[in-house]
Order: sequence, then structure tokens, then C-alpha cells
Amino acid sequence: MINMRTDYLDSLTNTDFDRSEAQQFRGKCRTGEHSGPTTGFCMKFVQANLVILPKSYAYDFLLFCQRNPKPCPLLEVTEQGSYTPSILAPSADLRTDLPKYNILQSGTITDQVPNISEYWSEDLVSFLLGCSFSFEEALLSAKIPVRQIEENKNVPMYATSIPCRDSGVFRNSKLVVSMRPIPVEMVNDAINVTARFPTVHGSPVQIGKPEEIGIEDINKVDYGESVTINEGEIPIFWACGVTPMKAIIDANLPFAITHAPGHMFITDKLNSELNIFSI
Amino acid sequence: MINMRTDYLDSLTNTDFDRSEAQQFRGKCRTGEHSGPTTGFCMKFVQANLVILPKSYAYDFLLFCQRNPKPCPLLEVTEQGSYTPSILAPSADLRTDLPKYNILQSGTITDQVPNISEYWSEDLVSFLLGCSFSFEEALLSAKIPVRQIEENKNVPMYATSIPCRDSGVFRNSKLVVSMRPIPVEMVNDAINVTARFPTVHGSPVQIGKPEEIGIEDINKVDYGESVTINEGEIPIFWACGVTPMKAIIDANLPFAITHAPGHMFITDKLNSELNIFSI
Repeated sequence: MINMRTDYLDSLTNTDFDRSEAQQFRGKCRTGEHSGPTTGFCMKFVQANLVILPKSYAYDFLLFCQRNPKPCPLLEVTEQGSYTPSILAPSADLRTDLPKYNILQSGTITDQVPNISEYWSEDLVSFLLGCSFSFEEALLSAKIPVRQIEENKNVPMYATSIPCRDSGVFRNSKLVVSMRPIPVEMVNDAINVTARFPTVHGSPVQIGKPEEIGIEDINKVDYGESVTINEGEIPIFWACGVTPMKAIIDANLPFAITHAPGHMFITDKLNSELNIFSI
Repeated sequence: MINMRTDYLDSLTNTDFDRSEAQQFRGKCRTGEHSGPTTGFCMKFVQANLVILPKSYAYDFLLFCQRNPKPCPLLEVTEQGSYTPSILAPSADLRTDLPKYNILQSGTITDQVPNISEYWSEDLVSFLLGCSFSFEEALLSAKIPVRQIEENKNVPMYATSIPCRDSGVFRNSKLVVSMRPIPVEMVNDAINVTARFPTVHGSPVQIGKPEEIGIEDINKVDYGESVTINEGEIPIFWACGVTPMKAIIDANLPFAITHAPGHMFITDKLNSELNIFSI
């Protein structure tokens, strides 16, 4: 278990904190030594979703994120043509430092590759978005159970009836949510803990009434795996990073690159640095 | 004084809440009945800074806001050519509903007008940004004094040495901060109250050490008016909405429109709805 207090103090004295664990992990992705999912690795560090688009779609996508901040919490946008995330990890190379990438052409995944050097061009803009791994660390630190971690599964995710706000070519998308069952006496804490992390989806979008957001059967997931909901637990729904991925697929862009699901970008930032009370 | 608890409950039942006070106030701006500053009017409602730019600068400015969220907390970006802020106030008209506008040409204020209909074109994009009036209401509700309100002055503001992150034509700007002196025993509360409102500048950027951010003389303001700092009070500095205004002037854009200082856009949103624990 992570000692949040120590992380927090470390983050205040910033330059002293040892970020080599994240740098070393990215090095292993670069050489191909690590090619699997990133779940459970570099637990203290912020993991990010990656979306790479031609510049001609960058404004629409940037505005889609601004209009839908809960599913699309934007942490960094690179300069056009640059593969350096200078805020989140200045020593990283976005072309090589993730374990696996999806190549999308006309809304279809046409290739899955361990690096994107051959697909890179000066026309591309990279977007890094927050992911729920960061707030799950905070939930665990607050002794709130995270069921899919206990059951060693992927988080249950559902398509909902909640419309996203449109932006340019990104139209008519619906919100995708993740679900975690929380003991009724801990619901308050779970809301407050996650609300402190707006850059990684923030507070829940729905509590205990899946039918209100178009989820007919809680045991039938649209993505991920279903988990046990015990007596005395309430299903809580958070906005999910699959939303922007789906919006990109729905938009049928001629070309896009994303991380492969679960194969995230490990940044130099600590999860605790995203806490709204420390930024 | 506003009863925050009632506002909060009203905001949860959203559609029931009477937003006519804001609509009526905007109507008075439209007809010219109200032409002065908006300080002290529609106190429950979010007031917003307005920036209007040609579409060719919209990406750079949107990214400038994303990269500098504390001084530039973006609440809404309209569709190109649209003067309707459909999220914040769907019945409003941004061309007429503010009491006063500044017209900028090549970085200089060339006109100050009560409506911008004659300057409007299909090429324009409007940006609405959060302002500190919203968190000041929360400070007052928490019984934390706000000195410039007590002294009936404009808030003291200072140019700092803190660099903004560049984006396109918006380069080499420095952060402008506002200052409020807070009794030492209330500093904790002042931080926590404002941290809950990241869309209106959020937590402070500096506490008690003006010299660390390039402010040589606390009694010499760069904008606004200086206020009394009593024995036992600590000057606290928050990111300020003058920052993006200065960035626009510094960038020497051929054309831009902003609200006139203090003459803000009154939205239909309640301040309490921006609390991170309620969104």
C-alpha cells in the first residue's frame, strides 16, 4: 500500500522526488522488454490514455474534451509534430514508450504495434488523458474496496444513454461509464475521494440507479468484465476513458493512433499531484 | 448573505431553480438600462470573462487555456459564428448581453461599446472563463473576510515572474495574480474553500511570500487597488483572469473583443454548481 502522506510531501519538494521508476519502466517498453498491460506497474505514477490525431482534427477533439471533461480529462496536448510530452514526462518518446498501440483507419483497428515510428508524421498532435487508475489508488488508500482489483479482473464498463456534447466531427456520442460496487456506508467517502481528482474523471455521474442512465442489466457489461456486487453494496458509476476512444471510432477519421486498451503511458507525475488540494 | 445549502439543494433539482434573476439582468444590459460594472449584481450566479477571437486563433487560445487552467478556467466555447452560450445561458446573446465591451485591434483598445453587433462576423469564436467572484461568495459564506469587498475597492492584482505555458501565438506571457489578505488562523480554510472551485481559479498559487513570485512591493499594485493588510494577516495570491487578457494584448492579434474590466457576463449557472463536489 502507498503512503499518501509521504507522496504528498515528496510532491511538494518536487525536484527531489525520485521519478526513475517511471523512466525505467518506459525504457523497458522502448526496448520491448515490457509489452503487456500496465495495470499494477508504477502504482504511484499517473497513467494516461493516448490519442494521436492529424492536426486537422485537433481543434474538434480539443473542444470535445473541453465540453466533456468528466470522460475526457485532458492532462497534456503536445505541439504539432512533437512526440515529447514536456509537462508529464519530458524525457519520454510517445512513439516508443507505451507497450502497445492501436492504429485506426476509417474507424477500424487495422494494426496493433509495439511502436509507431513508421506511422509517425509531422502532422500529428498527441493528447494525453487521465485514467481511473489514479483515483483507484486514492480509494484504496482510504480503505475503500475496489472490486475488480480484488477479483483480478478488468473494470466493468457500460454504454449509457447520457449524450456527450458534440464538437465538430465528434457527434452523437454517448457516455461510457465504469462501475465499482461500494459498501453503502462508504458511498460518501467514495464520492469525496474521487471528487478531489477532477483530472482523472472526478466524482461519480450516477449512484445506485443504473436504469436511469440506460443500463438494463448490471451483470451484462459492454466492455471489461462483470464483478460481484454483494448484499449491502451500491453500484457507483464514473465517467470512463473509453468514451473518447468510442467517439474517435464513431467519427470514422481516416487515421488515428491510440494506446491499446490497458497498455497506458506511464508519466513522471505522482497520482497525489493530481489531487485538487495540491495543485 | 447567500444561503449556500439552499442553493446547493436547488442546484440538485436543477430545472426547478428560478434563473429569471440572471435573465432579467441580461435583459437590462441588452436594452442599455444597465451599463455599469456587474460587481454585487446577481450574486448567486456565475459571472464570466468573455474573449472573442477570429477562428484562426481559436486553437492556439483553447490550448493556451488548457495549458494554463488556473488563470484561464474555461467554462464554455461557442460554435464558430454562434453568439449563443448554450451551456451557460441558452437564452442569452453574447453580442448584447454584457454591459460593456472592449474592441482590440493590433493589441490596442480602439473602442469601448455597449454592444458588438456591428463588429460581429461569422468568423468569430467566443470563450467564457470563470472569475473569482464565484469563489469569493464561497469565502464569505465560510466567514472568511474578503478585504476589497469590505473596503469597497477593486481587488489588488500584480504581474508576477511566473511564466505561463506558451501556445502558438500566445507566447512569453507571465501570470497575473490577485491578492486577498487572510487572518493566519483562516489560511487553511481559505485554501480548502477555493480548491473546491477549480473552474474559477481554484487553490492559491502562492502563500505569504510575494518576493518569491517577483512582487517587490505589496503596496504597489499593477492592476486594481491596494488594500489594507492587518497585523496577523497573510497575503494569499490566486491566479487571475487578467492573465489571458494580457496574453491577448501581448499577442498583438489584428482583432479581438473582450468584456470591459468588471463588466462581466452573467450566466444562468449558480456559483454553487461549480463546486467540484457537486459536478
